[in-house]
Amino acid sequence: MTKPLFALHHARRTSGLSVDEIALIAHEEAVAHPDCFVTVCSTDEIKAQVATVKARLDAGQAQPLAGLTFCVKDNIDLEGYRTTGNCPDYGECAGETAPAVQLALEAGAIVIGKNTMDQFATGLNGTRSPDPICRNALDPNIIPGGSSSGSGVAVAKGICDFSFGSDTGGSGRVPAAANGIVGFKPTPGLVSGRGMVYCNRSFDVIPIFAKSVGDAQAVFDVIRGADPLDPFAFKGRVKDASSGIGQNFAIPSALDHFGDPLAQAAHQRNLEQLKSAGATLTEIDFAPFAEAGDLVFSSALVAERLIDYGDFIAGNPDAVLAPVATAINAGLSYSARDAFEVLHRLAELTLQCTQVLGEFDALVVPTIPRLFTVAEMQAEPMSRNSIMGTYTYFANPLGLSAVAVPGVARDDTLPSSLCFVGLGGADRILLALAQAFEALAVDG
Amino acid sequence: MTKPLFALHHARRTSGLSVDEIALIAHEEAVAHPDCFVTVCSTDEIKAQVATVKARLDAGQAQPLAGLTFCVKDNIDLEGYRTTGNCPDYGECAGETAPAVQLALEAGAIVIGKNTMDQFATGLNGTRSPDPICRNALDPNIIPGGSSSGSGVAVAKGICDFSFGSDTGGSGRVPAAANGIVGFKPTPGLVSGRGMVYCNRSFDVIPIFAKSVGDAQAVFDVIRGADPLDPFAFKGRVKDASSGIGQNFAIPSALDHFGDPLAQAAHQRNLEQLKSAGATLTEIDFAPFAEAGDLVFSSALVAERLIDYGDFIAGNPDAVLAPVATAINAGLSYSARDAFEVLHRLAELTLQCTQVLGEFDALVVPTIPRLFTVAEMQAEPMSRNSIMGTYTYFANPLGLSAVAVPGVARDDTLPSSLCFVGLGGADRILLALAQAFEALAVDG
Repeated sequence: MTKPLFALHHARRTSGLSVDEIALIAHEEAVAHPDCFVTVCSTDEIKAQVATVKARLDAGQAQPLAGLTFCVKDNIDLEGYRTTGNCPDYGECAGETAPAVQLALEAGAIVIGKNTMDQFATGLNGTRSPDPICRNALDPNIIPGGSSSGSGVAVAKGICDFSFGSDTGGSGRVPAAANGIVGFKPTPGLVSGRGMVYCNRSFDVIPIFAKSVGDAQAVFDVIRGADPLDPFAFKGRVKDASSGIGQNFAIPSALDHFGDPLAQAAHQRNLEQLKSAGATLTEIDFAPFAEAGDLVFSSALVAERLIDYGDFIAGNPDAVLAPVATAINAGLSYSARDAFEVLHRLAELTLQCTQVLGEFDALVVPTIPRLFTVAEMQAEPMSRNSIMGTYTYFANPLGLSAVAVPGVARDDTLPSSLCFVGLGGADRILLALAQAFEALAVDG
Repeated sequence: MTKPLFALHHARRTSGLSVDEIALIAHEEAVAHPDCFVTVCSTDEIKAQVATVKARLDAGQAQPLAGLTFCVKDNIDLEGYRTTGNCPDYGECAGETAPAVQLALEAGAIVIGKNTMDQFATGLNGTRSPDPICRNALDPNIIPGGSSSGSGVAVAKGICDFSFGSDTGGSGRVPAAANGIVGFKPTPGLVSGRGMVYCNRSFDVIPIFAKSVGDAQAVFDVIRGADPLDPFAFKGRVKDASSGIGQNFAIPSALDHFGDPLAQAAHQRNLEQLKSAGATLTEIDFAPFAEAGDLVFSSALVAERLIDYGDFIAGNPDAVLAPVATAINAGLSYSARDAFEVLHRLAELTLQCTQVLGEFDALVVPTIPRLFTVAEMQAEPMSRNSIMGTYTYFANPLGLSAVAVPGVARDDTLPSSLCFVGLGGADRILLALAQAFEALAVDG
């Protein structure tokens, strides 16, 4: 059974709350969760937004996201707010709202605030931030996932109906997996990427966190479409959802859960569920995908992060968290020749991986190989962070689309998450596949 | 009036020569022009090729280029021959023929030899080569243009029916302009780029030199089409020739002919000819195109050349001509961050320039701003070489297609050349426009 759209909002509406009241509840919840928000919009601002939406509705304007509340990761511009990347000393007040956020606002959604995150979006675990560390929505001892920690947790906790994060190596999928919600990362360039502070401008994406695939798709339908002012807009063909939805999935021939048997068992049950619904699972060699993923932090690709962060880190070494500075400064050691060499290799891998993917409806992987506690992560902050990206790093450098969907519960009741990965431009096909799996999970 | 196809070949056939005889004449001519050829195929090899083509024809196979003779720049692989880039100490024997060349061979064309060139395809003037310097087909005191000097001159002198060069910053257009022939540089990735020694793998292209636009198109029809094994294959939409051929041209609002009044006057007459045929010429700001062109040698983009040439130059400093080594070694000073910064800027310029071009059928520029004598070029080998690329450098980094067509003769009887520049994928539209201009020149 398909999940109803925006269940939280509609439950509150059905219980008699007005749109103003719902927006103000979201405000209060955001204020009560400083671990998820760098900034919360004032009640006056929120009331003004609601009034604007009402006026548009009165004027007969379509407002497909009318009254839905959302929040925005703090590396995306919201006019009048500093874009800090969760580094208190970094960033300037944005003069313009990012086009993706602006489209949501114009569709009637109400922005509540800006989310905490792994500093400079350089991390996949959610603990790389100034205090207070964002807490997992389901278990405060478990990492919330990152880098879009606050954006993921705010949705998981029902503070907002949806949120925007950023995703370079998995930041729009890992927090979804850790908190039991949907994280949809469109094809790079299919949603405008303007108005952000960037890690890899070449393949950074604004993902959508939501409680269901349908919710994510409803938001995507509002914000998608090539931005004529975005130099990195997607130039390929956008496929229609109706063209060839099937049941023919690729899976890696070997998976590593890094010593988490509960994660492994839950993933197997997710695959069984797909199979019992008639899907064919075909093993493929994951090596070229893994190699592309490794390049994100183990090659000259990391130097692209220096463009937005390098000068600040060099000039303010004490203002940046150590693992973040270490990860980004690694880019200083690469030459321009190194950069072109890795781009050539990436082009070869893209050819290879897209040819493999072209034979399937999607590649199915566990979104994350395992969970860690906050204490475990802080004990080994670099290597364990990398483990989190094992099955997410590759998607953006290869130009792919991906959606993380909650699967069966693990035996410890924590969530599992299945990630469907598709070709660039196949986003709507992918969402349909993900929604079919979600319905299995709801029914199962 | 449209020029007849492959006039040289058909004149010889009409005069009673057999295909074998014609191929052997080409061989003799090639041997007699060591300034144009690094290597000439043996008569046995040529006879064997002709026999193969005859057998295919007897078997009823289509051979659209049957018996036409061609030659290949010495940075493109031809099985069994060293690919030297015109550096005697560089390069290995190719184990495979480049796909573009292979397609021509399979279509019945006969390869005669491999052409001299500006060493490592790093130059636009044709004098950057070991002795003997390639001589212009029309006036030995004038530079032949480069880097595909031998490929251009061999066609201009009627040694071969067509040839393949390489074009990074204009090497497939400048020799055409200097020798009064057609030089067609397809959209990057529309002809397979595999099997070359590269300057900028990201946007190097194999261009076609021919006596007429129709000849170039006939060869293009054989070799075009995305190569499924080429990581840099064109991924955009290929437009059909029938869609919207018009008369709406952009021209730069200001042109610099660098003190050559004859070039300036001839270019004006070429534009007048377009106008008298009903074309509308609209002035545009050339600055973003010029900036993109400047990046080819004045930014980290030059470091991409180090991948194929850097180690050799470092290890064999005496084996490489000074201006070539100087130009390529400039890449050593750039960091990976510099590389990503210039790629971002290039993405912005691509957006800007393609939006401008999208409003026109093509941009029309003089292929080269002026001519130089060999002595003038050798007196100032760096700055005067750059001048040659003023109106060619920008096309490949911006992903555009371009074709250089002979225009009216200059007052000193040397050729002028008009270059039509179109969007990526608009190659066939561009060829149709160029053919219409060529017909004006034939009739005019």
